[in-house]
This record gives sequence, structure tokens and C-alpha cells, in this order.
Amino acid sequence: MITSTSNQRVKELLQLQKKSKARNQAGVFLAEGTRMVMEAPQKRVRKVYVSESYMKKHEKELEEKGFVPEILSDTVFDYVSDTKTPQGILAVIRQMDYTLEEILKQKSPHILVLDNLQDPGNAGTIFRTAEAAGVTGILMSRDCVDIYNPKTIRSTMGAIYRMPFLYLDDVMAGIETVKEHGVRVYAAHLDGKNAYDQEDYQKGTAFLIGNEGNGLRKEVAECADAWVRIPMSGQVESLNAAVAATVLMFEVSRQRRVQ
Amino acid sequence: MITSTSNQRVKELLQLQKKSKARNQAGVFLAEGTRMVMEAPQKRVRKVYVSESYMKKHEKELEEKGFVPEILSDTVFDYVSDTKTPQGILAVIRQMDYTLEEILKQKSPHILVLDNLQDPGNAGTIFRTAEAAGVTGILMSRDCVDIYNPKTIRSTMGAIYRMPFLYLDDVMAGIETVKEHGVRVYAAHLDGKNAYDQEDYQKGTAFLIGNEGNGLRKEVAECADAWVRIPMSGQVESLNAAVAATVLMFEVSRQRRVQ
Repeated sequence: MITSTSNQRVKELLQLQKKSKARNQAGVFLAEGTRMVMEAPQKRVRKVYVSESYMKKHEKELEEKGFVPEILSDTVFDYVSDTKTPQGILAVIRQMDYTLEEILKQKSPHILVLDNLQDPGNAGTIFRTAEAAGVTGILMSRDCVDIYNPKTIRSTMGAIYRMPFLYLDDVMAGIETVKEHGVRVYAAHLDGKNAYDQEDYQKGTAFLIGNEGNGLRKEVAECADAWVRIPMSGQVESLNAAVAATVLMFEVSRQRRVQ
Repeated sequence: MITSTSNQRVKELLQLQKKSKARNQAGVFLAEGTRMVMEAPQKRVRKVYVSESYMKKHEKELEEKGFVPEILSDTVFDYVSDTKTPQGILAVIRQMDYTLEEILKQKSPHILVLDNLQDPGNAGTIFRTAEAAGVTGILMSRDCVDIYNPKTIRSTMGAIYRMPFLYLDDVMAGIETVKEHGVRVYAAHLDGKNAYDQEDYQKGTAFLIGNEGNGLRKEVAECADAWVRIPMSGQVESLNAAVAATVLMFEVSRQRRVQ
């Protein structure tokens, strides 16, 4: 059992919690909590850490799952945990490695392209909602929030394991590739001509979603085949990015559903 | 100019930032930032506070608006501010005082009933989104998050000033009153028979939205005329409360919109 916060492994875990660079160099991320660890694709799980108390209570489940966890004293676990009330279990998981080709080869793709999205909670909520709405893949500009940051991972509620996604070094080139695959690309934009529900989303569809404060970059919005707007009442100037994405994704889901 | 953090007014402001009880006893709340102060209904503004630097830069605008602000040294302003990078202006504003009758007397009401919603950010996002979706009023059970807390106020993006709302001591009695006014009440529920988009929302409509983790309380869900479900793909078990509310509100908006 590790009982000291100056242990080398503990230091490494802390780096993986806090530093995007450390995660990317090691090609891993951390998932915390029973559900997030148990739902993880087993072959991606590199290492499981538990607190002493967690081990006492859950030894059997861990064994059944084939996990041989490293045990940390409760104090040390609290020290490496990213949450206020740690559940006592976390895992080091190998990062996902989808390709654009995989994401595009599906039938009737339903894609989100996130451009410079910054809020970790928003990103996580978008992943979770996207899974529910039947989205087939999420593309992100390189300057989006790090999806592997602990807060985002938590707020995906497990969708991180199931939703294909990819960071694009060149988002505009990526959008061109999406279009070349016959997917129609819509920008969610205040100046859209048609309301979002006036379009037909039966065939391959992608939506461009912009930054929380500034919306879509002009040059990115101009890559779209069409702009659509979400009609708004009152004096509201814009919607939260996750909310706007929700409205669009669930309209696709609604149109594609066999009633 | 107030230059000491032990000044009585400064102490009062800090209480109003931090304590729901202090806000309710005084019948006021705080709004921070240029936009939130300038958008406030002028007759509700009790007092405006600015930092010394803000005053220097914006003396004219404040005068034009008829505000006679109390000036705090920059250090003292930072001390009372709830934000990491204070803009330098905040106002003490009289709490809203809508009645259920006012909210129900509108034509074709479109109402949200929030039951035990706990997350300040969720509540604020729901207010902002509700205004955009044409919601006519929001009812909240007494045990919901305090809508007047600074984080919620900020995330409403001004909708707090425009969206009629009311806390209900007895949420079930409140729902009965809503029904007596001819409004059809739907519970968003995983066990709903119909998908949410199979209902007709042209007439008075209310949605019951539950707690983030536990959903609707059974006894509250049972007050509904009908349960509707939001069809979900993948392994998602539930949606974020603000996301679920968004899907429902924008379906009403979509159905009621003249294309």
C-alpha cells in the first residue's frame, strides 16, 4: 500500500490529473468513480488505483472484474483525487484513437464539429447528449478544451468510451473531407436563412458549433453548405453552446426516428 | 469612497453575496457586471456600487443612466465581488414578486415546473434557454437551488429580469392550480408512453423537470396528466436536466411557430 504523497506513482497520477501535456505524452487519461472505471473498455484499462477503504468494501467486485488494483491509503487517495468527495477508485486508461475515415464510413453520419469550445462542462454535456441523440462522431478543432480533463470525463457520464471523436489539426480541411463524403454541413448561426427545423436531416448531416462567447469563427462558418438559425423569443442574444447543439441534434433524432 | 473591508456596507454586501437568508430577509439580490446592471429594470435597482477604476472610465454612462453609485476602492471591490475578474460594477436589486395568477393568466401558457433542481448553473441555463424558447413562466419547488445566488444570476444572462417565476411552498398544490387553469401537465419521465414529439403543445403546456441525479419525485411525477419520454440512443441512462428541458421547450416552440 502506498502511504506517502511523495511516492513516485502518486506524483505521476497528480501530473495526469492536472496536466494535459502529461496525459498526451503518456497517451492516457484518468477516470474516477466506480461507474466510470467499471464501464471503461477493459482492454484500455492500464492500471486501477483504489483507496484502502474502497478495497475493503469492494474486493470481490474488483476481483470478478479481473482488476489487480494498487492500493493507496485513504489520505493519499484523497490527495490524488480530482473530486471533493472521492469514491475511492480511479483508473489510468489508454486514450482513444479513432480516425476520420472510421467516423465517416458509417451509414448516414450524424456529426458535430466543435470549433474552439472552451468549457469542460459544456464539452462533457455535449458528448453525453450526443450519444443520446444518436450522433455518430464528434470532431474538434485542436484549440478546443481537452476532452481528457477530469471534469470533462466525469460530465460525459461514460459517453467518452462510446462516442467516436477526433481532434483536427486543421478544422477547415477536416470539414472539406466531411463534405467530400457526401455529408451536408450546417453552421448554427444567428444569420442563418432557414430555421433549423426546415432542413431535411435524413441523409448525412454535420453541425458546426462555435465557441461559448464568440460563436463560430467566420472562416469556419463559411465552410458550411448552409447556415441554419435557432429561432429565439425574448431578448436572448444567443444560446449556451451545449443547448444549441442539443436543439440541433435532437431535431435530427426526431426526423430520423420511425414513429 | 469606501477603502476598508471592515466598513459596515461592505460587510452587508458580502452577506448578500454569500447568504440566501440575508438576501431573502432584505428582499434583494446582487447583480454583477456592466451588462447585468445596465439591463436591470431601473425601478428595482436599490443601489449601485462601482470600483474606483470603473468610475473613472464610465462616469458618463452611469450619470446618463441616472445612477449615483457608491465608490469602493479597487481592492475593496475585488473583496466583495463574486467573480475572479471583477468588472467593477454591481447592483443591489429588489427581488421579483410574481404571482401564480399572473403567470397563469397569459394566453397558451408554456410553463416549466422545476422539482428539487440543485445545480446553480443548470438553473441559470434553464432560465436563459426558457426565454429563448418562449416559456411564459417557471415554477420551482421551495427546495430548488436559490435562483438569486450570484452564479445562477450570472448564468441567466439577464433572463432573470424577464422570465416570470415563483417558488412554491407546496409544489403539488401548485401543479393542481396549473391544471385547473386548463394547462396540460407533462412529466419528463423515462417510463413515458409517448415520445415527447407525439404530443400536441399548441394549447397551455407545462413540463415537470426533476432533480439532476434522481429525476422527478414519484409523488410529483404522479401529478402529471401524462408522462412523455425523450427517446435516447446508446447506453445513456438520462439527460442533464437543462438538456432535457431544452429538448421539450424547443419542441413546443417548434410546434407553435408559424413557418
